[in-house]
Amino acid sequence: METKNMRRFLVLSTGVAVVLLVTWLHLASFPNKEDLNCSLYSGWCTSKNRFYSSARPNPIKKPSSPTYDHQSEIPQHPLDPLTIQEFNRVKTILASHPLFKSSSRYTLNSVVLEEPDKKLVLKWKKGDPSLPRKASVVAVVKGVPYVLTVDLETSQVTSQETGSFSGYPTMTVEEMVGVLEVPLKSTEFNRSIIKRGVNLADLACLPVSSGWYGTPVEENRKLIKVQCYSKKGTVNFYMKPIEGVTALVDMERKEVVSISDNGQNIPVANGVNTDYRYSIQKLNGELRLLNPISLEQPKGPSFIVDRHLVKWANWEFHLRPDPRAGTIISQVKVRDPDTSKVRNVMYKGFTSELFVPYMDPTEGWYFKTYMDAGEYGFGLQAMPLDPLNDCPRNAYYMDGVFASSDGTPYLQPNMICIFESYAGDIAWRHAECPITDLKVTEVRPKVTLVVRMAAAVANYDYIVDWEFQTDGLIRSKVGLSGILMVKGTTYENMGQVPDKEYLHGTLLSENIIGVIHDHFITYYLDMDVDGSENSFVKVNLKKQESSPGESPRKSYLKAVKKVAKTEKDAQIRLQLYDPSEFHVVNPLKKTRVGNPVGYKLVPGATAASLLDPEDPPQKRAAFTNNQIWVTPYNKTEQWAGGLFVYQSKGDDTLQLWSNRDRPIENKDIVLWYTIGFHHIPCQEDYPIMPTVSSSFDLKPANFFERNPILGVPPNFDEDLPVCKAHKSA
Amino acid sequence: METKNMRRFLVLSTGVAVVLLVTWLHLASFPNKEDLNCSLYSGWCTSKNRFYSSARPNPIKKPSSPTYDHQSEIPQHPLDPLTIQEFNRVKTILASHPLFKSSSRYTLNSVVLEEPDKKLVLKWKKGDPSLPRKASVVAVVKGVPYVLTVDLETSQVTSQETGSFSGYPTMTVEEMVGVLEVPLKSTEFNRSIIKRGVNLADLACLPVSSGWYGTPVEENRKLIKVQCYSKKGTVNFYMKPIEGVTALVDMERKEVVSISDNGQNIPVANGVNTDYRYSIQKLNGELRLLNPISLEQPKGPSFIVDRHLVKWANWEFHLRPDPRAGTIISQVKVRDPDTSKVRNVMYKGFTSELFVPYMDPTEGWYFKTYMDAGEYGFGLQAMPLDPLNDCPRNAYYMDGVFASSDGTPYLQPNMICIFESYAGDIAWRHAECPITDLKVTEVRPKVTLVVRMAAAVANYDYIVDWEFQTDGLIRSKVGLSGILMVKGTTYENMGQVPDKEYLHGTLLSENIIGVIHDHFITYYLDMDVDGSENSFVKVNLKKQESSPGESPRKSYLKAVKKVAKTEKDAQIRLQLYDPSEFHVVNPLKKTRVGNPVGYKLVPGATAASLLDPEDPPQKRAAFTNNQIWVTPYNKTEQWAGGLFVYQSKGDDTLQLWSNRDRPIENKDIVLWYTIGFHHIPCQEDYPIMPTVSSSFDLKPANFFERNPILGVPPNFDEDLPVCKAHKSA
Repeated sequence: METKNMRRFLVLSTGVAVVLLVTWLHLASFPNKEDLNCSLYSGWCTSKNRFYSSARPNPIKKPSSPTYDHQSEIPQHPLDPLTIQEFNRVKTILASHPLFKSSSRYTLNSVVLEEPDKKLVLKWKKGDPSLPRKASVVAVVKGVPYVLTVDLETSQVTSQETGSFSGYPTMTVEEMVGVLEVPLKSTEFNRSIIKRGVNLADLACLPVSSGWYGTPVEENRKLIKVQCYSKKGTVNFYMKPIEGVTALVDMERKEVVSISDNGQNIPVANGVNTDYRYSIQKLNGELRLLNPISLEQPKGPSFIVDRHLVKWANWEFHLRPDPRAGTIISQVKVRDPDTSKVRNVMYKGFTSELFVPYMDPTEGWYFKTYMDAGEYGFGLQAMPLDPLNDCPRNAYYMDGVFASSDGTPYLQPNMICIFESYAGDIAWRHAECPITDLKVTEVRPKVTLVVRMAAAVANYDYIVDWEFQTDGLIRSKVGLSGILMVKGTTYENMGQVPDKEYLHGTLLSENIIGVIHDHFITYYLDMDVDGSENSFVKVNLKKQESSPGESPRKSYLKAVKKVAKTEKDAQIRLQLYDPSEFHVVNPLKKTRVGNPVGYKLVPGATAASLLDPEDPPQKRAAFTNNQIWVTPYNKTEQWAGGLFVYQSKGDDTLQLWSNRDRPIENKDIVLWYTIGFHHIPCQEDYPIMPTVSSSFDLKPANFFERNPILGVPPNFDEDLPVCKAHKSA
Repeated sequence: METKNMRRFLVLSTGVAVVLLVTWLHLASFPNKEDLNCSLYSGWCTSKNRFYSSARPNPIKKPSSPTYDHQSEIPQHPLDPLTIQEFNRVKTILASHPLFKSSSRYTLNSVVLEEPDKKLVLKWKKGDPSLPRKASVVAVVKGVPYVLTVDLETSQVTSQETGSFSGYPTMTVEEMVGVLEVPLKSTEFNRSIIKRGVNLADLACLPVSSGWYGTPVEENRKLIKVQCYSKKGTVNFYMKPIEGVTALVDMERKEVVSISDNGQNIPVANGVNTDYRYSIQKLNGELRLLNPISLEQPKGPSFIVDRHLVKWANWEFHLRPDPRAGTIISQVKVRDPDTSKVRNVMYKGFTSELFVPYMDPTEGWYFKTYMDAGEYGFGLQAMPLDPLNDCPRNAYYMDGVFASSDGTPYLQPNMICIFESYAGDIAWRHAECPITDLKVTEVRPKVTLVVRMAAAVANYDYIVDWEFQTDGLIRSKVGLSGILMVKGTTYENMGQVPDKEYLHGTLLSENIIGVIHDHFITYYLDMDVDGSENSFVKVNLKKQESSPGESPRKSYLKAVKKVAKTEKDAQIRLQLYDPSEFHVVNPLKKTRVGNPVGYKLVPGATAASLLDPEDPPQKRAAFTNNQIWVTPYNKTEQWAGGLFVYQSKGDDTLQLWSNRDRPIENKDIVLWYTIGFHHIPCQEDYPIMPTVSSSFDLKPANFFERNPILGVPPNFDEDLPVCKAHKSA
């Protein structure tokens, strides 16, 4: 598992190709003591500083075939992400800009493509001259945030805003890592650690975004909390929390603001059998339950990836990695079998924000109310996928190219995978039964295309799938796996817990409580159903009493359609006993028999946020106040919690935009949907969690004239491959 | 597709093996005119009577290898279904019983295994002497229903009840088919058909269970409604309804009670391009979107089927086909990796009843409120699965052996399939991110075992899956496909429909309305979590306001556990804004750290019945009044709508049993869950519906000490097969 990850990377310099060969070793277990240079920080000797002190890994070749030269990449589509050459160009342009020239203290928190105007992109066709390339840059100079547009044609910085909202930009990886050393400068902190019997050499610390609670200490500085764990004896340090010690750190000054020590000497859990690595598990005797199974495509995959354009079956879409959203899909179109024309479905879809509140109001826990995209960067945390396990053998991998905090581009290799999936499911079927005795059985297998990213935001792993079905359905699925955020406790058995004591979670193992928490993932879905002018229609199913004598039935369900005129009409909380369908229709395009063409949003299992709307975390995550929202398209309204989420006061959220109650009928509209999970941990989640998933669907509803896959063939024997076991081949 | 279904069958006679070879031809399209013998019934010339006039097909060999001799089958497990020899023995015993001896007019509506007492089954081990074999028989003699137990050891009929509840037994296939000819004896009916421009030779009719509405005409006779379609030009006659003509038929007397003709001459839809058969679709040019894809297992499957016992990975369970429930799984056990012991999870699980109310209160539609298991027999309608399309290539098939209405056994070949599935999903994963820089990525692929049946109750196809995961989770999934029940209309375009007119559905094509309806599937889940004495615990997540000064947070969610003392505590309607987890725990067995071992029910997306509780169909289907119920185990309470559902008055439902409010704490309890769907048809559902699915999970919750698949290996290159395309092999 580990050896395959030995890779070569190139560090890229601006403009000229100054190339340095660096070997990045995936260490099999703990770093060698030699690697650590423990003398650098007295008493602090974790693996963290290795990352900080060495150059960021910058591969230029895709590790798997086909080899791909990112160095010479040239954008081919208006939505293609910035190339390495473009990143370098941005860096050069900014370096000579007065703002940066005069300051040695600046951070580029985000450098991404500035999308051309939607209208221009919609008009653009392959072969047309390329649209002007621009970069959108979020920079912090001497503590002041700037939003800049860098025109790559004219080399001008054409726009410059300092922003009027509260909050700070998404942390850079360097910032996250950089704060971890700060508490170690505090003897008070070190004393608290040592008092709990932990050797400072065993420390592993995490940067915990501190939220915002309206206290004076939070004013005018970017704060973070640092909490630590012991990695003695296990790579799974999350299961060995050093409970009750929290450092509050000023991120910019890299200073400890305060140390909180609850004074209780809660033992650190022993971590026995928490190391989940196969290399370690194998030592105890592996659990081999199954013979191998594989998805095989004897004639190769059915999709084509042309840079960032993906074509599969009747679908085509643009796909790009993004440091904040992770995966962005754009210009999603489906071919109509009746006309052979490709029709628009969605202009842009991505995970706009996450909200992960923990349900423990006590000192060391109350602030854990993460917003993973805006605070940590959902894409920044999307590590290379494991080729045979994260995605099946038949997958194609796409790299991310992002900028580090000084603007230097680097590769996030194998960040997204694309594969065809067949689970043995059925696309459609009908068998005539003995009643009709027609002797007809017709069945079509269901094959889908999956686009996957897995972001590990510290402990939690989010598996984010976009799945396309040939029948026109798009499924957005989120899988949660990874490791719980647990709390240390003196209890080793529930028998010791006094009746009235509430643990805020489940005792998972001796000295370990899995704290109850929620997950919300809010999607931005710029639907363009057969064009940009769309309406949102709620089709409510209402119980209708039949009039006396009208029918032997007393009641039936009646579908009552209501077109949402303004945004407040589309602020929707789901109710099992007041059900509706949610359609995005094009009121000007009708099917042959006169139904407006549409797609419907079909929620899956979900959960709602029950926090007090005036609770500071809920105000900041007010985008979870409803499950569904619809807003008029506005280029600046893409991040549900606001552009600057870190430590924000909730003054730039979807809730506030929507409360403006703008007209949304027959407009270019954006649909928002939130998938929610309540998670009461159980022992099976320890020490690593089996995946739990939920999803929602975008489903054609009178979009096609009829079932668009009526004409697909079934499987035949001769379609299937002839296979041999590897060894016998 | 059709030719592979040419099979040989044997007709089995009682006791002595009088064997007749019959060739059952799967006709490629419409039956030849020669086959029909149209002279038999004047004016009636459909394919239906072919079925009725020929012997029922009775294969004795499994068509696919391994060949399996059902003739010589001997039961090996107390829950094994009746064998052919046992069916024949029951027939012989009954033939000499006074009740049947004296009557030529009797029907055996059901002959199935009478399960031995649960306590005996739980004690029984492989190698023990077999438990006494008994058959449970539902018979109707001269219009009177009887429930009998036939002891196969003593040849005695040991129990005989006529039943005190309303309603009739599940129809036999012979009854369903037999009523179809009745309306044709009525000149009034034939006139109504001909008046609508349909040639009687093109008729295809359906037996529509008539429900119960408390009218005098319904008293003391078993009624059914017959509605007809035109199969001119398409095998998909469902899309050509002859709207407005309904025959009410007395099932026992085979007499027309009344003919309803609305007098409107609604045109029969033209049915253009509704024939979904590949042979027909190919003529228009097939839609080939994909290269082939296949699930391959180079070292063979990981499961063993020993008669009706299935062992896979860490699971084992008993599986049997049932004419009413379809698939019954029993004695579901999972191996604990910590102790290597096999532990009980569920004693018995099956689809107990379905409820499918259509939302149109008008004359020809109000009564369409199907209860597919108790009225039609969910298993009786489960036709042979299509080997490469209903299930993947790596599937194993199990046959059903059922009794026809005179007690003669017959085979339902390939009724259930079992296969391993791998969709490319992830069982668990964690990657360390740049923050911690630990260079760990560990991922395990998710492989599951699927047990599938597909029941086509006339137009609708229900794909019923039980899916087992190695992490201890059991998923029950229902997929809906097949063909809509549609209504004829004069409208060809929505532009013609007056503003105030409500269609009760969607105009799908010219002259066709897809009528709104619901589907409810109610599961019986006799949970035995580590033993039979279990409790049901609702873990409610409640918003808790923090006290002033307690925390910078205003609120958090608190888990409040409540053990259900009696049945009414466990009548549960789901609410997004009042969420709970639903645990079945064994209060006497605790994990190492003291949590009661348990499994939780995790609902997926669902729908609730909104009909008036006093509406006759809702009274009969009162088991859909809640999503969750818990009852104490009672051998006679297995069918949620009552044993005799057909035309029942709702006097034997789960609602009534549960209202007795019996104690359920620390008892042998049965959990009931209902999956619901609201279906507003859309044009994509025409002429055959893409599958829509929903599911619920039974998930270990503190059942295992820890993640039970921590020790499983990842995929390695050498595990995967080497494959070639069929042609090149």
